Amino acid sequence: MSIDALLAGPVRVVNVGLESFARDLAANGTAVAQVDWSPSRSPFDERTEAANAEALRRILAAAPLLVDVRRAGELVPELDAERLLLHAGPPLPWERMCGPLRGAICGAIVFEGWVADLDAAEMLAASGAVKFAPNHHFGAVGPMTGITTRSMPLLVVENRAFSNRSFCTINEGLGKVMRFGGNDAEVLARLAWLRDEFGPLLGKALRASPVELNPLIARGLAMGDEMHQRNVACTSLLLRNLSSAMAAAGAAPAALAKAFDFIAGNDQFFLNVAMAMGKSILDPARGIERSSIVTAMARNGTDFGIRVAGCGEEWFTAPVEMPQGLYFPGFSAADANPDIGDSAILEAVGLGGFSMAAAPAVAGFVGAGGFADAVATTRAMNEIAAARHPQWKIPALEFAGAPVGIDARRVVDTGIQPAINTGIAHRRAGVGQVGAGVSRAPLACFEKALRALGRS
Amino acid sequence: MSIDALLAGPVRVVNVGLESFARDLAANGTAVAQVDWSPSRSPFDERTEAANAEALRRILAAAPLLVDVRRAGELVPELDAERLLLHAGPPLPWERMCGPLRGAICGAIVFEGWVADLDAAEMLAASGAVKFAPNHHFGAVGPMTGITTRSMPLLVVENRAFSNRSFCTINEGLGKVMRFGGNDAEVLARLAWLRDEFGPLLGKALRASPVELNPLIARGLAMGDEMHQRNVACTSLLLRNLSSAMAAAGAAPAALAKAFDFIAGNDQFFLNVAMAMGKSILDPARGIERSSIVTAMARNGTDFGIRVAGCGEEWFTAPVEMPQGLYFPGFSAADANPDIGDSAILEAVGLGGFSMAAAPAVAGFVGAGGFADAVATTRAMNEIAAARHPQWKIPALEFAGAPVGIDARRVVDTGIQPAINTGIAHRRAGVGQVGAGVSRAPLACFEKALRALGRS
Repeated sequence: MSIDALLAGPVRVVNVGLESFARDLAANGTAVAQVDWSPSRSPFDERTEAANAEALRRILAAAPLLVDVRRAGELVPELDAERLLLHAGPPLPWERMCGPLRGAICGAIVFEGWVADLDAAEMLAASGAVKFAPNHHFGAVGPMTGITTRSMPLLVVENRAFSNRSFCTINEGLGKVMRFGGNDAEVLARLAWLRDEFGPLLGKALRASPVELNPLIARGLAMGDEMHQRNVACTSLLLRNLSSAMAAAGAAPAALAKAFDFIAGNDQFFLNVAMAMGKSILDPARGIERSSIVTAMARNGTDFGIRVAGCGEEWFTAPVEMPQGLYFPGFSAADANPDIGDSAILEAVGLGGFSMAAAPAVAGFVGAGGFADAVATTRAMNEIAAARHPQWKIPALEFAGAPVGIDARRVVDTGIQPAINTGIAHRRAGVGQVGAGVSRAPLACFEKALRALGRS
Repeated sequence: MSIDALLAGPVRVVNVGLESFARDLAANGTAVAQVDWSPSRSPFDERTEAANAEALRRILAAAPLLVDVRRAGELVPELDAERLLLHAGPPLPWERMCGPLRGAICGAIVFEGWVADLDAAEMLAASGAVKFAPNHHFGAVGPMTGITTRSMPLLVVENRAFSNRSFCTINEGLGKVMRFGGNDAEVLARLAWLRDEFGPLLGKALRASPVELNPLIARGLAMGDEMHQRNVACTSLLLRNLSSAMAAAGAAPAALAKAFDFIAGNDQFFLNVAMAMGKSILDPARGIERSSIVTAMARNGTDFGIRVAGCGEEWFTAPVEMPQGLYFPGFSAADANPDIGDSAILEAVGLGGFSMAAAPAVAGFVGAGGFADAVATTRAMNEIAAARHPQWKIPALEFAGAPVGIDARRVVDTGIQPAINTGIAHRRAGVGQVGAGVSRAPLACFEKALRALGRS
């Protein structure tokens, strides 16, 4: 990135090494990003340090805006061109897919009208007549099963510092939903309403009134959100931001009221916006030779995959672990599906488990203790993150920045696995969410990435 | 209050004394209010303890809802019957009123059409032809100058546990506003729009969809608000709650969009709701013989007044102090008006400075330090508060309840003056807000109240 492009963003100075320089600049009102650095022994470390500094420069220079909602097939032409279906996590064939992922896929096949019912959908999916690919291969992300098909409306986040865009479906709400493997008539009817009424209305409002996301995230962190398992503040702030434009869009009062009810009724509405934002921030860091900064973490319910900046599009995978957490009444760990979803993009960008100190209520919700434990989680994540975000500040840490930029070397050196705040799906198709917890990114992914970086 | 009335509220158990009992109950899922108690030497203490427990029972049993917006003259018939004008704080005559209070009064007189311009208004006000009285004498509260006149639309909060109602004007927003002494054409035009368009729309939405305030406050405290100098979360949550009902009210798209813009553009919109709520919670505790629990704190820019439960409607006053704080660019302490406004009702109910630990950003805004200082402020207020609120919890204190129920005895015993987070008005009429800070309730008010209680 050129100096000009850097200066166009909100960060004016990136300080590498001695923190006191950054403090002096910050005291004078300069927007400064502190990048940790200390001498290291590894043979590729000097070049890796420079590459990581460049990766962090790009990540911290991001200017993401929520700008639109569009039909998926319009944004990803491949979805219209063939029977292609996108899912969360790294690639995997039908044979290796878990229950909720298969369930969601069958529901989506019926939703697209390719067959009439779920049994026929399962036969079609198993027959090889439907192609599967990760969301990440087409500029998208999706929570949990993360199914994206051609007629679904997608949120569009544009990173104006680099002119790249990322997409995510609209969050369906709580209860029986496709992201947790739901696929019955209620699920498909909601998706049809999102496609036909809500998506177009939200898109019209966003085109009239795009929403800057950096300040929204900064406010949300000061309001108890970590944007993965808690989006109460950002959902409320987004609705507040958009209420006027949605009113001005001229929908009938009943349709507008229904749209407001839908957003207002779902504390996690903002999750999908945050995920698209996370990808839009991290994508420009892909392909910086030798950089060990993580650009994506994603799970498909079978494998956990990461990408690092120095290895472009390559996935480094290992078997997913089981989340540790709390279960809704009537459910237990025996019901749980292993870790799933593209939502770990949030931890990769410094939110979720990395910003747990901002959201002590989440620590309780996921069974990870109270306020002190939440602070301890963020402190631990500081050990494996290369920078503190200059705008996303955490009040309970005396307004220190969120830990951003996971350095795969630090993960391997310290053995500290990234903590991911996650929902837990039932392992069978069609049941839905059974709890919430913390999952850990497998160390093997980071070890594989470092070996590949060493070779490159 | 009867046991039945108590059990109708959300608090099922009030524990007086040993905290371990409360902890055991809370661990079993019982909504329990802890009331501090320890033996004391004062001759009237045993009866005062019982009276205070009753006051706290009433305060913690409150069930406030924002239910309506109505014309002030309809809610307070005296405003229609004579040229009566309500103001913040305890009573005081025109001759003793400060600059911004006089400025706001003159603006309100023009707004009501009693005379044509500000000069004529000042003559009318000084002539004795207009009556002045505290908001508190008519069920109302108002921020800063707190002017309430007959045609203004008032928010109505109903405490359903006791069927009492309290009123407050609608927050005018930032910049030149009547509450800070503003009185020019821009100020009056905004008041006219509130009266003619916004107030009726909000009232219609609220009648269709009243808003429960206890859970809203609980959420807001977990989202960085203390509801006095920071209402970002509660304003956003209120808008989110009301968006559907406002859409369904059937206003023209442009009028609806303007209404949303007005709320969305003012982080302090909720302040006036919180104030009416505070009064509705504390009013039922008035008149409990011998109780030393504070039921109101209010300032008129000249005097600071408090009321205690054992002395009904009586005011105990002392000269107001100057707030200590930070000034907007171009202003200094030399420009500041002494402490003013009914908003200290928030501290009397456990919010504002008492819940500073929930809102570390406010500590910075008012010049009171960072996160650790905010926590220290709440810890100090714990020393003079008789209970911890069972529903209003502060995450950074491991979800301990907000300190509620100021005991005038503790204030005098410890010498700890209640900390009030406040805006600072310019001392001259018509200028507006010049800063924000922390003011202290004068000890003399509490000493006078204790003497009166001793006599009673």
